[in-house]
Parts: sequence; C-alpha cells; structure tokens
Amino acid sequence: MIKPWGGRFEKATDRLVEAFTQSVSFDRRLYRQDIAGSLAHARMLAQQGIIAPTEAEQIVAGLGQVLDEIESGEFVFREELEDIHMNIETRLRELIGEAAGRLHTARSRNDQVALDLRLWLREACDDTLAALRDLQDALVSVAGEHLTTVIPGYTHVQRAQPVLLAHHLLAYFEMFARDRERVRQARARTNVMPLGSGALAGAPYPLDRQFVAAQLGFTAITANSMDAVSDRDFALDYLSAAATCMMHLSRLCEEFVYWSSAEFGFLVIDDGYATGSSIMPQKKNPDVAELVRGKTGRVYGNLMGLLTTMKGLPLTYNRDLQEDKEAIFDTADTLMGSLHVVAGMVRTVMVDRERCREAAEGSYALATDIADYLVGRGLPFRQAHHVVGALTRYAESQGKKFSELSLEEYRRHSTLFDEAVLTISVESSVTARNVPGGVAPGQVAVALAAARRTLEGYDDAEPPR
Amino acid sequence: MIKPWGGRFEKATDRLVEAFTQSVSFDRRLYRQDIAGSLAHARMLAQQGIIAPTEAEQIVAGLGQVLDEIESGEFVFREELEDIHMNIETRLRELIGEAAGRLHTARSRNDQVALDLRLWLREACDDTLAALRDLQDALVSVAGEHLTTVIPGYTHVQRAQPVLLAHHLLAYFEMFARDRERVRQARARTNVMPLGSGALAGAPYPLDRQFVAAQLGFTAITANSMDAVSDRDFALDYLSAAATCMMHLSRLCEEFVYWSSAEFGFLVIDDGYATGSSIMPQKKNPDVAELVRGKTGRVYGNLMGLLTTMKGLPLTYNRDLQEDKEAIFDTADTLMGSLHVVAGMVRTVMVDRERCREAAEGSYALATDIADYLVGRGLPFRQAHHVVGALTRYAESQGKKFSELSLEEYRRHSTLFDEAVLTISVESSVTARNVPGGVAPGQVAVALAAARRTLEGYDDAEPPR
Amino acid sequence: MIKPWGGRFEKATDRLVEAFTQSVSFDRRLYRQDIAGSLAHARMLAQQGIIAPTEAEQIVAGLGQVLDEIESGEFVFREELEDIHMNIETRLRELIGEAAGRLHTARSRNDQVALDLRLWLREACDDTLAALRDLQDALVSVAGEHLTTVIPGYTHVQRAQPVLLAHHLLAYFEMFARDRERVRQARARTNVMPLGSGALAGAPYPLDRQFVAAQLGFTAITANSMDAVSDRDFALDYLSAAATCMMHLSRLCEEFVYWSSAEFGFLVIDDGYATGSSIMPQKKNPDVAELVRGKTGRVYGNLMGLLTTMKGLPLTYNRDLQEDKEAIFDTADTLMGSLHVVAGMVRTVMVDRERCREAAEGSYALATDIADYLVGRGLPFRQAHHVVGALTRYAESQGKKFSELSLEEYRRHSTLFDEAVLTISVESSVTARNVPGGVAPGQVAVALAAARRTLEGYDDAEPPR
Amino acid sequence: MIKPWGGRFEKATDRLVEAFTQSVSFDRRLYRQDIAGSLAHARMLAQQGIIAPTEAEQIVAGLGQVLDEIESGEFVFREELEDIHMNIETRLRELIGEAAGRLHTARSRNDQVALDLRLWLREACDDTLAALRDLQDALVSVAGEHLTTVIPGYTHVQRAQPVLLAHHLLAYFEMFARDRERVRQARARTNVMPLGSGALAGAPYPLDRQFVAAQLGFTAITANSMDAVSDRDFALDYLSAAATCMMHLSRLCEEFVYWSSAEFGFLVIDDGYATGSSIMPQKKNPDVAELVRGKTGRVYGNLMGLLTTMKGLPLTYNRDLQEDKEAIFDTADTLMGSLHVVAGMVRTVMVDRERCREAAEGSYALATDIADYLVGRGLPFRQAHHVVGALTRYAESQGKKFSELSLEEYRRHSTLFDEAVLTISVESSVTARNVPGGVAPGQVAVALAAARRTLEGYDDAEPPR
Repeated sequence: MIKPWGGRFEKATDRLVEAFTQSVSFDRRLYRQDIAGSLAHARMLAQQGIIAPTEAEQIVAGLGQVLDEIESGEFVFREELEDIHMNIETRLRELIGEAAGRLHTARSRNDQVALDLRLWLREACDDTLAALRDLQDALVSVAGEHLTTVIPGYTHVQRAQPVLLAHHLLAYFEMFARDRERVRQARARTNVMPLGSGALAGAPYPLDRQFVAAQLGFTAITANSMDAVSDRDFALDYLSAAATCMMHLSRLCEEFVYWSSAEFGFLVIDDGYATGSSIMPQKKNPDVAELVRGKTGRVYGNLMGLLTTMKGLPLTYNRDLQEDKEAIFDTADTLMGSLHVVAGMVRTVMVDRERCREAAEGSYALATDIADYLVGRGLPFRQAHHVVGALTRYAESQGKKFSELSLEEYRRHSTLFDEAVLTISVESSVTARNVPGGVAPGQVAVALAAARRTLEGYDDAEPPR
Repeated sequence: MIKPWGGRFEKATDRLVEAFTQSVSFDRRLYRQDIAGSLAHARMLAQQGIIAPTEAEQIVAGLGQVLDEIESGEFVFREELEDIHMNIETRLRELIGEAAGRLHTARSRNDQVALDLRLWLREACDDTLAALRDLQDALVSVAGEHLTTVIPGYTHVQRAQPVLLAHHLLAYFEMFARDRERVRQARARTNVMPLGSGALAGAPYPLDRQFVAAQLGFTAITANSMDAVSDRDFALDYLSAAATCMMHLSRLCEEFVYWSSAEFGFLVIDDGYATGSSIMPQKKNPDVAELVRGKTGRVYGNLMGLLTTMKGLPLTYNRDLQEDKEAIFDTADTLMGSLHVVAGMVRTVMVDRERCREAAEGSYALATDIADYLVGRGLPFRQAHHVVGALTRYAESQGKKFSELSLEEYRRHSTLFDEAVLTISVESSVTARNVPGGVAPGQVAVALAAARRTLEGYDDAEPPR
Repeated sequence: MIKPWGGRFEKATDRLVEAFTQSVSFDRRLYRQDIAGSLAHARMLAQQGIIAPTEAEQIVAGLGQVLDEIESGEFVFREELEDIHMNIETRLRELIGEAAGRLHTARSRNDQVALDLRLWLREACDDTLAALRDLQDALVSVAGEHLTTVIPGYTHVQRAQPVLLAHHLLAYFEMFARDRERVRQARARTNVMPLGSGALAGAPYPLDRQFVAAQLGFTAITANSMDAVSDRDFALDYLSAAATCMMHLSRLCEEFVYWSSAEFGFLVIDDGYATGSSIMPQKKNPDVAELVRGKTGRVYGNLMGLLTTMKGLPLTYNRDLQEDKEAIFDTADTLMGSLHVVAGMVRTVMVDRERCREAAEGSYALATDIADYLVGRGLPFRQAHHVVGALTRYAESQGKKFSELSLEEYRRHSTLFDEAVLTISVESSVTARNVPGGVAPGQVAVALAAARRTLEGYDDAEPPR
Repeated sequence: MIKPWGGRFEKATDRLVEAFTQSVSFDRRLYRQDIAGSLAHARMLAQQGIIAPTEAEQIVAGLGQVLDEIESGEFVFREELEDIHMNIETRLRELIGEAAGRLHTARSRNDQVALDLRLWLREACDDTLAALRDLQDALVSVAGEHLTTVIPGYTHVQRAQPVLLAHHLLAYFEMFARDRERVRQARARTNVMPLGSGALAGAPYPLDRQFVAAQLGFTAITANSMDAVSDRDFALDYLSAAATCMMHLSRLCEEFVYWSSAEFGFLVIDDGYATGSSIMPQKKNPDVAELVRGKTGRVYGNLMGLLTTMKGLPLTYNRDLQEDKEAIFDTADTLMGSLHVVAGMVRTVMVDRERCREAAEGSYALATDIADYLVGRGLPFRQAHHVVGALTRYAESQGKKFSELSLEEYRRHSTLFDEAVLTISVESSVTARNVPGGVAPGQVAVALAAARRTLEGYDDAEPPR
C-alpha cells in the first residue's frame, strides 16, 4: 500500500505497526465532518483561484458520492490507509482521478483533523445540551407533582429537617443548569475554525479562511497556526464538563438506588428502568441508576487519560494526539446515554408519599424548629441548641416522638416552652423557611416557575449550528 | 471541650478521632473570609431586627479584635475546636460574652463554609488571572524581541518547517488566553452567595440575602438551599481550569528543558532559574522548568481527588466535603507559584539566534516549500510530495543540504525545476505563509499587536472584587 | 547563601525560585533516615580506606549531635539550604569542620534521596501492616460476637438473601488480607539498597555496597545505577496498594453511614466516633465514616499525580521526581489515620440485632430458598425462578409476607408445594448454604477460626526492619 | 424477549435501557471462559449427583456445539439477551431443551461473571508476561551489541557523565523485570476460583468447589462468598501493574523520540516503525514511540476509572461492576500492543555510534572525574567540586573543551593538578565506576550475563495455566 508520505521511505511499515497506528477503526465516525470540511476547502480554493473551477466541481461531486457510499454502507474502510482522511481521499481519487490530488493543496492532516474534531464535538455539544434540557424538563415535571410531598431532608444521610420533594428535585435542576453553562462554554471554544494552519506554520497560498469558517458555521478562526494544530483544550473542556455532569448524575442515582431500597421505600422505579435477578425471583434492581453511577468512573478516566496524554508534549502536532478521539467519542456516548436513561427513569418513577411523610416526621427532624422556637423567646441559639439536644436524648430514652411529649415534659427542659410548641409540625417547619432559595412552599413555587421559564428560554438561546 | 453540638451526646469524641476529623490546621486560611462573612451576616441580622443593634455592634467590634489577634499572630488555634468557624466564635464569646451566641442565628456551618470557600476562591481566581496576565506579558515581551529569529518548527519533535520564535511564543499566549477565559468563568460561578441556606432548607428568619451579597461583592444569590450547601462545582471548575493550565505550562517547560540541553542549545536559562549539581561541577539544570512540569501531576491529582470524593454523594452536606479545601489551596498555591516562576524564567532567558537559525536551515526543513514550488508549476500536491521525498533521500545519501544541490540534480527529479528553486530559503518559506494565523512576518506582527491590545484590555475588564 | 553546586554560577538563585524549589519544608521528615544512611555510608568509607578512621569517627559523632538537635527541636531548618540533606550536612560542617566534606565522597543527592525515601517507606509499610492487622483484629472480634446475628444480604442495595453479620464482616477481613499482601510486596520492592549509584553511573571508589545494605537492614542492592536513581516504582506500588485499601475502607464506611441511618437502623455508632450538628440538636452524624470515604479521593489523586509526574521522563534523575515525597507522606498519613479510626469505629459499634433480623425476614428475601425448594422437587431452576417471581408479585399485591401465605396460596402457583415449604426460614436459608466460603453457621465458624489463625500468623511473619 | 428474571415484572424493559444496560457487545470476548466454566460446573454437578449424568452429557455436548458456532462466526449475538451468559444459555436451550435449565443450578451470574473474568485475566497475564519477556529480550540483545558504545548519561536532560549504551538499556531491563513481578503477583491473586459463591451467600447444594478449581487450573478457592462476588481487586492489580509498565514504556519512548531527532541524532528508527508526513516530504516521524507514550494516558485513565467505579460501593454485587470489563480489555490490548511494537522498534533501531561518542565527550561531562581526581589528591569533595565548577566556567569562557586546556590552565585553578589529569577520558571515566550496578565495562558485562540468565529462567518459572 502506497502511503501518502512514502517518498523518502525504503521499507514498508511493519504489519503490527500498521494495526497499532491505524485510526480508521474509530475515526471513521468523523466521515461527515471530514467531507463537509473538504467541500468548504475545495470551494474556497476555487474561489481564490488556487484550483480550477472544474476541479472543484469534480471534487464536490466526488465527495458527494463518497458520502453516499459511506451512508449506504457500501464504502470499504481500509486499515492500511491509516485514517478516515486517507480512506476518503483514496476513494475520491478512484472516482475522479488526478483532481483529487488538488484537494490536499494548502491543507495538512494536522489542521484537517483539528477541523473534523471541532465539527464533531460542536454537534456533540448541541446534542448534550438537548439531553440536559430533557433531563431538566423531567425534573421540573416531577417536581411540579410534588409541591406538597414532604420528605426528610438529609445531611450525613441522617434525617435533618423536613423538606419538599420538589425542592430536592430542583436542587438537581440547578446542577444541570450549571452543566449546560459549562457545555455551552466548551462549545464556544470548540467553535473556532483551524483550517489554513497547514502542518504547523500556515499555508503558502492566498486562502480565505473566513470564507471556510462561514461555510461551516464557525464564528471565528484560530489566531495562531502552531497553537491550532496542537490545541486540544476544547476536548478537555468538554471532558471536564462531562465529568462534573456525571458526578451530578451519580449523586442522583445514588439516591434512586437507596430510596428504592426496602429500607427507605420512598420510590418505586418503573419496571422499564429496573431489572431482575437470574437467581433471586423477588429482586427488582435499580440497574440503570447503578450503571450510570458506575459509568462516572469511565468518564473521569477519559478526562484523566487525555490530560495525561497532553502533559509535557512539545509543540506542535505529535502522534500522541491521536489518542484524543476515543476519549471524546466514549465520553459523549456515555454522557448522552446516561442523561437519556436517567430522564426516563425520573419521569416514570413512583413516589410513596405516605412513606416519605412518615420518615419526615420520625427521627426528631423538627428539633431545629424547637430550638428556633426558643430563640424566638429570647434564648441565644447556642443555648437553645443545647436544651433541645437534652430534650432529644430524653425523648429517645422514653421511646417517644416529640409529638408525644407533654408540655410538662417540655417545660422540664426549659420554662420558655408554652402551648405553642405543640403546634410545631412538618408543615410549620417547611413554611417557616421562607427565604429566597428556601423550602417554604411559596419559595419553591417561585423557583419552579423560574425553572420553567429557564427551560423555555433554552430553546431560543440554542446556538445555531 | 464542649462541642457546639454536644447536647445529645453522652461520651466525648475519641482523641484520635478529634485529630482525624479536625480541619482547623488547614481551614484557618479562611479566617479573613470567615470574619468578613460574619460581619455581613451580623449587620444584616440587625438591619432585619433579628438581633439587637447593640448586639451587632458588639459582634462587629469583637470580630475586629479577633481579626487583629489572628493577623498579629497572637491567636491560639485549638484543634479540639474542630474548625476555623468554632475557633473564631469561641474567642468571640470570650471577648464579648453572650452576644456571640446570636451570631449563629439563621446560619449553619454548612452555608457558612460554602460562603468562606467561595470568598477565598474568588480571590484566588483574581490572583490567578493576574499571574496569567503576567506570564502572557512576559511571552509578548520576549516575542517582541524575536520577530526575526528563525527556529525550526517541529512536529513529532522532527524539524518540519522554519518558523519565527515570536510565532512559537505567541502560540502559548493563545493557550494562556484561553486559560484566563476558563478562570473567569470559574470565578463567575464562584461569585454566588450561599448564606441563608441554613443547614440545608433555608432559615426561619426574615433574612435579606441580597443585602449580604451586596456587602460581600457577590453578583447573585444561590437559588436552592439544598444545592447551595452541597455544591462544589465552583471548586471543580477552578481545578479543571488549573489542570489545563498546568498542562500548558508543562508543554512550555518541556521545551525549555530540551531547548536548553547541549543537543538543542537554543536557550540559555538564566542562573537565577537554574540550579547545579552537588556532584557534577559542570551541570546547570533547568530545575524550575522540571519542577513545574512535575507539579502538573499534583494538580491533576487534586482534580481527580475531588471528583472522586464528590462521586455518588447523596444530598445534602456530607462530611466528605471537608476534603475540598486542601485540594483547592494546594492547587491555587501550585498554579500561582508555577505561573510566577515561569514568567520570570521566560523573561530572563537568553536565545542563541545563530544556533536556532542553523537548526532551521538544517534537516531539509524546506522540503515542503520545494513541493509547493512544484505545485505552483502545476503538479498535483500528492505527486510533488513524492518527488521531494525522493529528492530528500537523494540529498541525504549524498550528505548534502538542499542548498548544496545543483540545478541539474534538482532537474533529475523533475523537469519542472528551474533557477527559481535555488532562491527558496528560510526567509522565503516563512514569508510565503501569509495567511491569518500564519508565520509570515507581517501576520506575526499583526498577532503581536493584537496580543498587546488584549493585554491592555485585561486591566479594564478585571472583575471587581 | 553558598549552594553546594555554586562553582559555575555567576548569579544567585531568584528568591521566588528558592521558595519554589526548596523541599526542606516537607523532606525534613526524612531526617532520621538521612542520618542513618550517612552513618552507614561513613562507616563503609572508613572500612574501605576511602576516608580516615578519625574522620569517620568525627562524622559519626557529629551526626549524633545533629540528630539530638533535631529531635529536641533546637535545629534550625533553613529553606535556602534547599533540602534536608544540605541542612544536615551544613550543620555537620559547623560542628566538625572539614571532615564533613568527606561524607559526600562517592555519594550524590540522587542516590542519597533514593535511599532515604526507601528507608522511610519501608517503615511506613511496617506501620501500615500493623494498622491493617489491627483493623482485621477488630473485624474478627466483632464477627465473633455476631455468629448468629442475621442481617439481609444485599445485591444492588436490595435485600437478596439472609446472611450472618459475621460472614459479612469476614468479607472485609479478606479484603484487608489482600491489602496486606500488596503492602508486603510493595515493601519487598522498597527494601533494596540504592546507595553507590552515584549521580547516575556509580562511583569511582572501591565501595562495599553490601556492607551498607547489611547495616541498614536491606536484603539486596540495586542492580543498575541509572535505574536506581530514577526509579520510583516502589512508591507507586505503595500508592497503588493504598488506593485499593482506601477503596475497601470506602465500601465499609458507606455501609456504616447507611446502616446507622434512621432508615436502616442496624448500627449505632459510638459517640466517640460520631459528631453532632451545630444547628440541628437531634443529629448524630457518622463523620468518621464519611471522612474516610471522602479521603479515598485524596489517595487516588496522589496515585494519579505521581503516575502523571513520572510519565514520559527520560533517564535518569529529573527534578520532577521531587514531587514524589508529598504524595507518599500524605498517602501514608491518610491511610494509617483511616485504618486506625475505622478500627476504633468497628470495635465500638453497637448492633441492633432485632432490627437486623426483621429486615432479613422482610422483603421476600427467602424467595431463592423457595425456588431451590422447587428445584429439589424436580423443577428446572429457570422455571422455579419464574414460579416464585409470580408468587412474589402475588404476595406483594396482597400485602403479605411469604410466612403469611397459606399452603393453598402456594399451591395455586405450583402443585409441587407441600407442608415443608412452610418451614423455610431465615435459619434454614442460612444453614442450607453449606459450601466452603458459604454463609452456613458451620462454614462461618470455620472461616472465623481461619481468620484468627491468620492474625496470629502475622506476628511471626512480620518482616524484620 | 423473556428475561431470565422476568417473573415479577409487569412491564418490559425500555428499549433505550436495553441498549444502555446490555453488555454482550463487549463481554462476548468472554465466550471461551464462560463455556469452560460451564463445562466444569456441569461435570461437578453430575459428579455430586445434583444433576443426572445424562443431563451433564447433553450440556457438555451442547456447549461444545455453541463454542463451534461462535468460533466459526455462525453464532448470532442478541443484545436483548443482555450478556454473554444468557446468549450462550439461550442457544443451549434451543439445542438441548430442558436440560439447559439445569446448568444454572447452584450458580448465579454474580459468581459466573467473576469466574469468567478471572479466567480471561489469567490468560491476559500470561500473554503480558510473554510480551514483557520479549521486550526484555530485545533490550538484552541490543545491549549486547553496545557494550562499548559510549553515550552521554543525562540528569535533567543535561549531559552528566559518560555511560555505556548497554548500561542505559539494562536500566529498562530492570524496570520491565519489576513489571513482570507485579503481573505475576496480579496473576496469583486472579488465580482463585469464585464459583459456588452463588448470588452472594453460597449455594444450597453439596458442591465440590475444589473439583471445579482443579478442572480449571485454579490453585485455590475464594474464602468468602460475599467478598467473592464483589471483589475486583485482581482487576485493579492488573490495571495498576499496567499503569506502571506503560509509564516505563513512556520513558523509553520519550528517549526514542528525542534521540531520533536531528538535534540528538543518536538513533535512526527503522522505516517499519516510523511514518511520514502527508505534507512535508522530508519527515520521518517516530509515530510508534509517540503513540505508545500517548497511550499511557488511556491506561492511567482505565485504572482511575475502575478505582472510581468501586469507590463507596456497598456489598455485594452492584451493577456498577459491569464497568470493569472494558477497562480490563482495553488495558490488556493496549499494553500488549505497546509491548510488541516497542520490542520491534528496539530490535530494529540503528545507533549512530560516532554521534553518541561525540556527545559524550562534549559539554564537560568529565567534570566529575576531574573533581574525583582532586579528591584522590586529598581535597574534600565539596572543595574539589568548587574548583572544577570554576574550571568549567573558565573553559567555557575560552570556548575550550577540557581536553583542550593546558596543564598550566589546570594548575591555575588548583596546584594539585599534574600530568595525570590529561589522561582523564570517556573511557577512564566509565572504567572508574567499578562498583556493582555501576557503568564500568566489567560490571555491565556481569549485569548483561545476569539479565540473560534471568530471561532463561523465565521459561521454566512460567506459571502453568
């Protein structure tokens, strides 16, 4: 097999090496981007008089046919042609002959692959944004059904204070809203056009780089050719955003796993999002939640892998950079797959409101409210805290809930207690936290409305591709 | 030692546990932020009528004294008081008595530490931005001296095409410009005020959260209390930005290490940025560059560590989160230290222009230009490439440089060659790449001017603290 | 300040650089190892006639005094002397004069620091082994009290089959036994003596490397000087072993966190290993378990950091290697601290046997036993599984436990059921799994006895230091 | 599609979920191991009278046919059957009917997949050991040709002291010898038989676990069923060993990249292990070395990924564990591919002895020898170092090598110099370092012989599969 660079070589590539260094087995996913980039490049070359108009027409027609062949499955990818670029160019030459050779004028594989990767990732960003929005929509939708569902709020996995399920779900809405921001920022840094950087130093032709950028929907061109061919920051931006987003998903999934256990019993996961056991007939396992949680590791690993690969590389292009693609592909696949199944799991989950309420009322979760009550009667908070700590110990020793204590028992711990203490309830607790961002029903309703407006705003704001 | 939460406990904390769980040995770095937050909180409580004006005055005065004691070194930090918050509050109580207890009204350590950390990191972002600007300034300054210094441009650590040293340095300018953008975006997500979120559900008091935010220079308040006390995205944003920035530094340092070797000989690192060997008297080692490159691992590790810590944590606050601080502190220290020493190293480096030029002229780095020459005479690029590959092999076998080949020898490889081929030089090569972002002197001058304008723009754009 | 390598330098080190490159702020922890190594080296030099006996005596006496000064706190560490080696040697010169200069004969800081680090880590390995044994002892001890305590065994955090708590705890015993094996293997690769490798090529003196090794308790000497000064595999071995061990601890701690929640209620963590909330008086939080789980991230990060630092370093010593120490120190501190507090937490935990048993009997955890019963009556397993799946769904719909179903209800699902099905119980389930490694009480008793023997065996097997 | 666990479910799995949770697209690589395990299990069940001999015969015959179908490519893998286990079992049922259902008696997918994975990894360990041996053999072979080839030894990428190329290569031999030890230890922990652990608690049948172990070549059985189904330490052991080994490869490759640059010029990489540039005809790039260096990131990432996945998982099996396989497969493929191509690259590399020697003689690399010479004449080392530092500075200022200095110039720096100093040479330097592990030719010859014996020893010592 004649390589595109074979001129100065006397010996063929070792077969093992050919298999080791080829990338077409995975970079074939860039075929659409590679062809789109070549079309824009050919048109620009013709416009600038660098190639003849007829050559450009031949190239455009030929690339159209290559695209058809790939999409119809006819195209034969050949490992010995190394990568997607040479596979396409070789086929183009078979189709249109010598003119195919003109296409590589003023272009190197170094800037070509940077272009393809940016185009692919830009689209992946858009798809990720859509998947994030879908999950946020699921959260808002379920939150809307649970504006009055009371659950225990936890710190340290200990019941802390009663909260509304809607408030809990909207906490995740906030996380994914930040994830969207990160992905949009990653997209913006991706959306810069590198072609024209040549192998490293630019090209000795009168190129119109802005024309190519406009054709491909880029908002800017890269400012330094040496940076352009060795920069993979945009990939790291996406991998970092994905890592944080998977972390958020892992937290949500951890809760779904435990909340659907016999011990918590807050949620019943829909059969469509659970699986059974081949040996234990009674089992219904939250596999989707577990698998997403587990896949967090893979996405972290991809980030760490690319960071490691990039460490200490001198300028400009080094073959190490070939390792960028699989990390990006796998991360985008994993993240979007995870977002989609979690959105479905959230939308279909059933909530056991009774069980949630019982849990919220148990375990002295109103202790803070009783302390706040004492503060309202003039006790400094630290002392009120101490009184209620002792009260809790007393109630526990008597096997009683707070609601089962008599006023006299209260007053034994502080004479500041009067009848009003007996009206403290899950509802009064929640309602009292009436600050912006707090759990009071009015505040949560405001937050829900804001979340809905945010979701509606996303559509318009979506960046054009 | 009485803990702030001791009421319901019958036994003291195990001593080993006390040492294991304390954080004051490192979170004392937050003292300024903790006091600033308490001052704002106390003023707001008084303004809202939640505490008496005189109590607020006592608290403000007392905190002022605590601050003085800490800054003068008088303050005794006590491990058994767990963290910076309790150390300060305990001292405050010694100074002003009962009123100190009012300060914790409507506040939990959960939202308090989130506030402190955001204040600290916001400042670290500003310092990082300044350090980045300083390094960019150093690069621009040295680039300005080397607008005509020719060096080999490398791909695969093989000489590829001649470039200007200024162009090479400006590639790093671009990287650090993107780093600035990331840090600014991290700062923006940090600059959101969490106080008022209480332990997890908000506070049952009529707080004015916007007042606190305004006092502390925040541009927004957090939207969900449960998210606010469990969110560490802002820290991950900074750690991610730092990881990418250290990666950039590691690339620059790798080049300084090799370029100052006997083999390359392009650079002489200033004595102030090198060290010697205790055993080999002739050695001058690029220790600063090596150490920065090595510290990349530490910063990656901090990112990976916090990502791991956050993975799978249910809402809301869990003690695992205590692990956030050292990762942030160490990363900020390492990154800023690295930026500072690298800026100094860059500013003081001496360039051996002769050696650079010789290298650029050696090794057939003009081969692409010769191929482009053939393309200019009508040969498709792929064929021109093949001709010059063979020409290179021929020259190598003869032990000749291109400039030592006769026209006849050229024409033996292609009859398209004529006299003009003999005028191809390092200068003609560089000048030919006259596209935006390319290495042509005019383009580099434009890029340098743009970089200077960017630097000037930074000052004005600096976010207010 | 005169550096040990100052001869060829004209300019002093930049002050910022001095602070950036110094290591004495952390490598002072190696002082004991550094002095021990110097003593052995000096004695060997004298024995081989390389230095005079009187010089060796002066050095030995002087180093003894330095050691005393450090341990008594008198010693003044000076940052401008860079590292622990130069701090000690400089003080030695002040004490004994010119003879101090002889100590560095045939030694470089490159092999010296490799020696110190190996000595330090060997000791850390021994301490880790002891801490692991202590935790295993705690597990065995608590397991011994719970040979008949039945808990639900979980897969996917869903109740799967009843198991004995002893069996569950012994699963962790196995994990920590493997950790011990890893630490011992790391220790063995650490326990190789590098001195005599010089800066990189060996030393031009008739050294007796075996003598030094014997003096310091090493079992072998390094085989290649270039490898010896650039090898940090032993550190990575320890960091890898620590990462896996922290992973095990994080699993145990995750269980302690959840099992001590109101929802599970299996465990009550001793007050000494829990903390409270400054705002919620009722809270008792499993902080120790959470913090250990959280610290897993830090240890993973240290491993990843050192792996990154080492990546792509050419031979031999590079200053990047200075980054090894803090990763090792922090990992050893974190791991040992975690092992100690977890051992204490395990030993003092209270188990609510009633609650455990109720949970084990709930949720149809005996479904597999019922299926096995059908298999015993001739049904292929896959069919039996299907029958019991339907039976479970039926019971659930009726709100009944298996033990509340009538024989008739059983027989409606399969006529293979007879009276005997009503005797299936938690005890019969456990007892039936009577295979080596299984949960049957007899098997667990055997495993416990084996674990005790293993523990006893550790003492004898402990490697001599 | 009827799932093996469908009994209690009313709704089908969501299609998206089916695609998301399936593993057969990658765990099909375990088909051989799965069938081998089933064969052993069936035979044991029959031997123990748990299934009928005829049933066992049917199963054995049927599995044989399934194996044939898979290896011939006829077998149709079905994603909706989730994993390799169910794909095989379903086909077995088609082939032999009801008896297939007996095969799952006393077995769960939890212990089955643990078995398969251990069998697969054991084989991967053996293949890795063989690949390591091959690379060590290549190093020894090339070292044998370069017992007198002098190169500069480097510290900090600065020429330090002359060394022999053989010595340098044998440093890598040592690294890979340690890697072998790690892989063997990982193999030993892998080689433990988990079957019989059931889903988590063991199986209620009179199994002969030792029989199964013996049939499959295992040396031991797992000791605790709950540990056995949730343990992936053996995978982490391999991934850790692989990470360290890739780190070693990255160091070797870094050297091949730089040493084959125009600047170093020590090596010429064989055409079979290099590639060219599509745009720069003169380029010959060390792609294999770069790609291996780059793949270090991927292997680190796999380790970090699995560590993250395992963090904080409660006992016993959780679906998160499904993420173990791709990390293992990808790591083994990458590591073995890398070892193979590097071995080939090493074997075929050409060394430019002249260029190496010139480099070794340049740059004052004999300074240490001159200092040692002064020590030999009675000067303490620290003073001798200082004298030679000044001498170096002087020579540099005169543009002279040491060999070009007159005796008088030497004596100006110290009167201890006499004629003998003029005989110091690269050869005398190397020869002087005559300590075990040092670079003296005699020592290197001894080391090479030892390396050859080690290699020979590997064959015998290879663990039986």
